[in-house]
Parts: sequence; C-alpha cells; structure tokens
Amino acid sequence: MISLAELQRRIDAGELSPDDAIAQSLAATSAHEKSIGAFVCRDENPRAQSAGPLRGIAVGIKDIMDTADFPTEMGSPIYRGYRSRGDAAVVMMLKQAGATIVGKTTTTAFASVDPTPTLNPHNHGHTPGGSSSGSAAAVAAGMIPLALGTQTGGSVIRPASFCGVAAIKPSYRLLPTVGVKCYSWTLDTVGLFAAGVDDVARGLAAMTGRPELLLPSSIPTPRIGIVTQDFAGAPEVSGGEALQIAARAAERAGATVHGVDLHEIVAEAWQAHSVIQEFEAHQALAWEYRENYDAMAPLLRARLDESKGTAPAAYDEAMGVASRARHALAKVFEEVDVLLTLSAPGAAPQGLDSTGDARYNRLWTLMGVPCVNVPALIADGGLPVGVQVIARYGADAEALAAARFVEVALRRKWR
Amino acid sequence: MISLAELQRRIDAGELSPDDAIAQSLAATSAHEKSIGAFVCRDENPRAQSAGPLRGIAVGIKDIMDTADFPTEMGSPIYRGYRSRGDAAVVMMLKQAGATIVGKTTTTAFASVDPTPTLNPHNHGHTPGGSSSGSAAAVAAGMIPLALGTQTGGSVIRPASFCGVAAIKPSYRLLPTVGVKCYSWTLDTVGLFAAGVDDVARGLAAMTGRPELLLPSSIPTPRIGIVTQDFAGAPEVSGGEALQIAARAAERAGATVHGVDLHEIVAEAWQAHSVIQEFEAHQALAWEYRENYDAMAPLLRARLDESKGTAPAAYDEAMGVASRARHALAKVFEEVDVLLTLSAPGAAPQGLDSTGDARYNRLWTLMGVPCVNVPALIADGGLPVGVQVIARYGADAEALAAARFVEVALRRKWR
Repeated sequence: MISLAELQRRIDAGELSPDDAIAQSLAATSAHEKSIGAFVCRDENPRAQSAGPLRGIAVGIKDIMDTADFPTEMGSPIYRGYRSRGDAAVVMMLKQAGATIVGKTTTTAFASVDPTPTLNPHNHGHTPGGSSSGSAAAVAAGMIPLALGTQTGGSVIRPASFCGVAAIKPSYRLLPTVGVKCYSWTLDTVGLFAAGVDDVARGLAAMTGRPELLLPSSIPTPRIGIVTQDFAGAPEVSGGEALQIAARAAERAGATVHGVDLHEIVAEAWQAHSVIQEFEAHQALAWEYRENYDAMAPLLRARLDESKGTAPAAYDEAMGVASRARHALAKVFEEVDVLLTLSAPGAAPQGLDSTGDARYNRLWTLMGVPCVNVPALIADGGLPVGVQVIARYGADAEALAAARFVEVALRRKWR
Repeated sequence: MISLAELQRRIDAGELSPDDAIAQSLAATSAHEKSIGAFVCRDENPRAQSAGPLRGIAVGIKDIMDTADFPTEMGSPIYRGYRSRGDAAVVMMLKQAGATIVGKTTTTAFASVDPTPTLNPHNHGHTPGGSSSGSAAAVAAGMIPLALGTQTGGSVIRPASFCGVAAIKPSYRLLPTVGVKCYSWTLDTVGLFAAGVDDVARGLAAMTGRPELLLPSSIPTPRIGIVTQDFAGAPEVSGGEALQIAARAAERAGATVHGVDLHEIVAEAWQAHSVIQEFEAHQALAWEYRENYDAMAPLLRARLDESKGTAPAAYDEAMGVASRARHALAKVFEEVDVLLTLSAPGAAPQGLDSTGDARYNRLWTLMGVPCVNVPALIADGGLPVGVQVIARYGADAEALAAARFVEVALRRKWR
C-alpha cells in the first residue's frame, strides 16, 4: 500500500516532487486497476498541486459524491452520464488541502447493498465489501494513498476490514455531506480510507483544518472497553479471533482492558437503525424509487419494497430510542476512553453476490460516534479481518490515537 | 388569496374539479405575475392529478429545490440552465400527495440576502422579504394556494410577515432537505406558505402523511409566553404594535398570557447563529465561492469574505452554546405551551435593495423549534406585519393550533 505519511515526508524533504508522487499512484493504478476494477472513471492526466499538506496525494472519490470534473453516476443507470454543476464539500476540502482527485470509485447503487464489479485485492474470489467498494479496494491494492467513502450502515468500516486498510468513520457531520447523494440524513457519514491510522489521521486533519486530529508524538495508553455486541448475534470464528487478538495485544502493551456491558436501550437503538434508515431512504430516494422503479438495483428495490409504508410514528419512536441511547452511551465513556469491538462478523465472504453484513457497524453509525478500523489478523484465504476502535461523539482525535495504540500493539505482537 | 382549505372543500364536495382548480390558479398567476415577478419559470400547461389530498392544488417551489421538470438556478448565474436529474424529497412529497408543481419561485442567490426582482404585492415599492421572496409573494398575490420556501436565518417567517401570509418553519428535519441547495446543514429548514394557518396545516399534514398536524375541530386555549427578544435590539413601532395587539387579542380570547425571560445562554445562541451559518456556508458553497468568485452575488460574497477563516474551535464552541440553549429553551415549555414573539422588526422596508432583517428569526431556526407566522396588523402603506407562534421542538401540531387560536382572536378583534 502507498503510505500517505511517507509520501508527505518525502515531499516535505524534497526527495519527491508532488508530480512524481501523483505519477507513482497513476502507475500503480494502471498496474492493478484491470484486475481489481475499483474505479468508475479516471482522470488520464491528473496534475499535482504545488501547495497544501495533501499536495502529491492522489485521491479516489466514491461515485455518490458530486464532482464538477467527472460524472457522478451513483452506481445506477438512473444517473448514467449525470454531471453535477459543482463539487461536493468534501471534494473541495481535499482540493483546498492540495490533493489531486484522480477518479471516481465504484459504489453499490445509491450506497446500498447491490455489489459492484470490484474484487477484493487480497483474494479475487471474495467481495471487497460495500458500499464504498472501490475506495477500500483502491487503497488496499496500493493504487492510491487516500480515498473517500460513506457509511450509512457499515459502508466504511466493513470494506476497510475486508480489505485490510485503516479507515475512519468520523463523528457525525465532522465532514459535511453537502453534495453527497443522500440515503439517510440521520446516518450518512463521509469517511476516509488509507494504509494506516497515521495516514488516515493526516488526511482528516488536512481536510478539516484541524491539526488536533494528527496523532500526538507520544500516544497515550488508553482505557479500553471491549464490546461484543451480542444483540447483533455471534461473530464468525475469524471475527471473534480478531477481537481477542487485538484486546490481548493492547493489554500486553499496557492498556487497561475489560468487558463493558451496554445499557439495553443501546441494543434497542441497534434495532431502531433500520427503521430510521429505510424511512428516510423512502423520502431521500423517492424520485428514483417512484419514477424509475424498473431501473432500481434489485436488492435495494426489494429493501425499499419491504419497508414501504412505515408509519411516521414508528420513525419518531426509533428516533427517540436513538436519542436516549446516545445519552446512555455517553455515560460509558466516563469509565473508558474507547471501545474496541468487531468491524465485521469475520473475513470477507466468498463470492461477489453480497457485500457482507453491516450488523456490527450500524449501531455506531446511528450513535454518531467516531469509529476507526484497524486490521488485526489475516484469516484463511489471505483475507484480513479488522477491529474497530470507537470513542465518544466528537472525540475523533482520541479514537485515532487509541486506534494507533492498538495498531502498534498488534504489529509488536506479530514480530 | 386562494385558500387551500376552501379548494379542498370544494373539490371534495364535487363543486370544483382538480383541473378547474389548477386553471383558476393559472389564471390568477397570469393576471398578477407580470406586476409581481414571483416566478423564475412556469409550466405553461400544468395538469391536475386525480387523487391525493392536494389534488388541484397548484404549488410554487423555491428555485433552490431540485426539480426534474424545471431548471434549478439557485438565483445565481452560476447555475444558469442547471437541471438536476431528479426531484427534491419535498417536491416528491407534494407530488405523492396529489399536488401540481406549477413553477419555480424566485430566491435570493443561494438563499442568502441579495434581492430578487420580486415586488411586495401589498406595496410595489417595498421588498417582499427574502430569501423565499417569490414563494411568499406568489401566495400573497393570490396566484397560488401553496408554496415552499426555506429558512436558514429568517427566510420563511420574515417574507411571510412582510407579505401578510401564514407560514410555517417546521421543526428541524420534519421536512427533509434532500435535493435542496445547502447553505448551512445545521439550520436549513424547508417551510410552507399559504393563505391562513389552516391552509398551512393541511399542506404540511398532506406532505408528511401526518394527519395529527391538521387543526383539531376544537382549538385548545394555549398558555402563551411573550418574548421580546431584547438581545436582538428593539423593534420598530409597527413590529412592537403587532406583538402587543396579538398578545391582547389572545388574552381577550381566554389565553393565559405573560412575559417570559429566556436564560442568557439563549441570547448567546442568538449570537452563535451567524458563526454556525457562515462556517458551514464556507463548506457548503466552497465550489461556488472558490471557483466562481466573480459570479457570486455581491452581498453574499461580501458576507463570505468577512467570515473567511473562522477557526473550527469557534464553530465547535458555537455548536456547544446552541446545544445548551436548546436544553434551556425546552425548560421554558414546561411553563407555557407556546411563545409569541416578533416575526420581523416591522413592516417590509422600503425599496428593493434589501430583503429586510432576520434578527428576530435566527435564534428559532438554530433552536430547531416550529414557528408559525400569523398576520397581525396592516401598517402604513398597506403593509402587513406578522407575529410568530413558537412551540417546543417536535410540537408542530401545537404550534399550528396555537397559531390558529391567535389568528381567530385577531380576526375577532377586527370585527
């Protein structure tokens, strides 16, 4: 993989020009794209900017985000050839930080669950996960150092886990969703994929102009609460192992680690997630669903068919549960600095007819708390499995620092 | 003005066909549009739908809302000829409820403060207010029974007050902003304009599928707290009179009416509004501002120039103040059912170089609480002045019912 931090270091030191850094990403993309299929379209002649912390950084943008310079097709024939007038806010943030947008990455239709043609770089017979399939795979294949995705259920953390890359789903609305196709306004969150936690932190800090998101030179030792999310069912063997290995590594590295029980309202919120998601999707995608029914991707359409006619009162109740759960969860963070839990049930499932299961992600999206995926082990078939480090709402810097702690602890273990 | 309730009654009774109802609005629009200039573009041959509670209802849509059937030009040459692929969620809600979209109404550029060519129907030498200028004026001039606008500062309630129509800025996110050009995602709220409170309630109930928003057959007598918003400065004579007249009328009609002091954190939130609004606007309009600077409307551009470089920490602090103020405000509603306050400093100011002052509106937009404008008096020059009735977050039905109480009380007084 291409390390953003390493590129920055070499560019800052004058060892590499921003143009050469972009050229390097281009060459890597040319080498791997044919076998992985991470991009919907690419700029054949991208140019580096000369200033900004992300100069020389080639970025892939999930194809549900508006770009003035590329079509935005939402993974759906309904938007074939569609051109927005301007750039999404996050695209402009990248440009203002000096980055170069090199192309649009594949997305499941409207960031839902119908698979894209993208393959998992670690094993081509497996899904890269979704819905941000192309962004996760492009970083994992070493094509680009940074990519943007979005998460409504588990569309950032899950593909990051399946593809063995670091990723952050930041606190709700730390990154604006303006110009990003909406599925659920209460849930949709823009996230970043990069090679490691430091790389992700650098990308997020540069985009937001918040240097406090950069990793501190000395990473504090976190108090870690382990959450097994029993309300979401049991994990597969590899998922359970990943969590156990990460917990042990963190403990050996000096962290306080103990199990944490979540208030039952939090489990209720896990169930409320889908009510909120689909109720809002029926409004957000009303034009697509009502006026382009036949052209809708089949799994998404079936999901909307099933959830049709949910009463506003059920939605209001789900929103109330979510609000109470956020308060209950905030209390947990009085005892621990971060939570450590599963990123996915296990390694990427075989085949390309599913993007995997978001059941360990959706609660945290609804809670709006920052989640960072850290690769924890390599399972059978060479497939990575990650864990996620979660901090309280607004504590994105703490989530990143603790994720870095876990990342280092896991590498130490592997020696 | 055309009463939506009256149209519904006649259509339900079979006295008027939906097509004839639309034709009636078309004829009225043809008669007045030339002198008022409320529309950016119109459907020359709109057709009624045959079913739905809003069949036969001609609706105007503020031109920052996506429409598949009309261009969406945002009041700016930057979006000249721009066509979205689909319809905004609120446009689909109207269509699903049976309404007919007859055209797009004028908006200040990106719903900010640069005036549109629209004139105030009550006095052509005065502004209709902004930013939803065309929607307020089209209803006020009797062209259409219903129109949509948006409010970020005071862009629904203020033009409603200046134009003498009823309007609601509902609770934050009761109506989705999906497909509506964003200025500030924390503030932007879609609202409705109609002839009277009953008409507004019928429109909102039909759009949302929430019959509980319809007025009850017997309107309860509210406990009313009067708020003068001293932190926003003193009103003009006509504004102060409107509030006094409405308060007295409500009291005479049996309501409990007394002054309410707001916690000082609420006054702080009033100041925090502009920090949040402009910080988010710099992200939401980054493409327009950075890449189309010369084509930006001058007042908006100056506003963005001034607020450039606001530190994320200042924004975070403002968001914290807003959150604490929402809690403090919620406590006020333990003592009273609704608040009654100014909709604007006074009648619409003379001339067309300003859309008036949003200082009595912005706090309530930030608090996310439902606000309903009720016309209260006619000042010099034949210009109306309104007051706003405000309920706690989520209590849109209570806001509408209490506004109806005040509306009836005021009419009684005028006999």
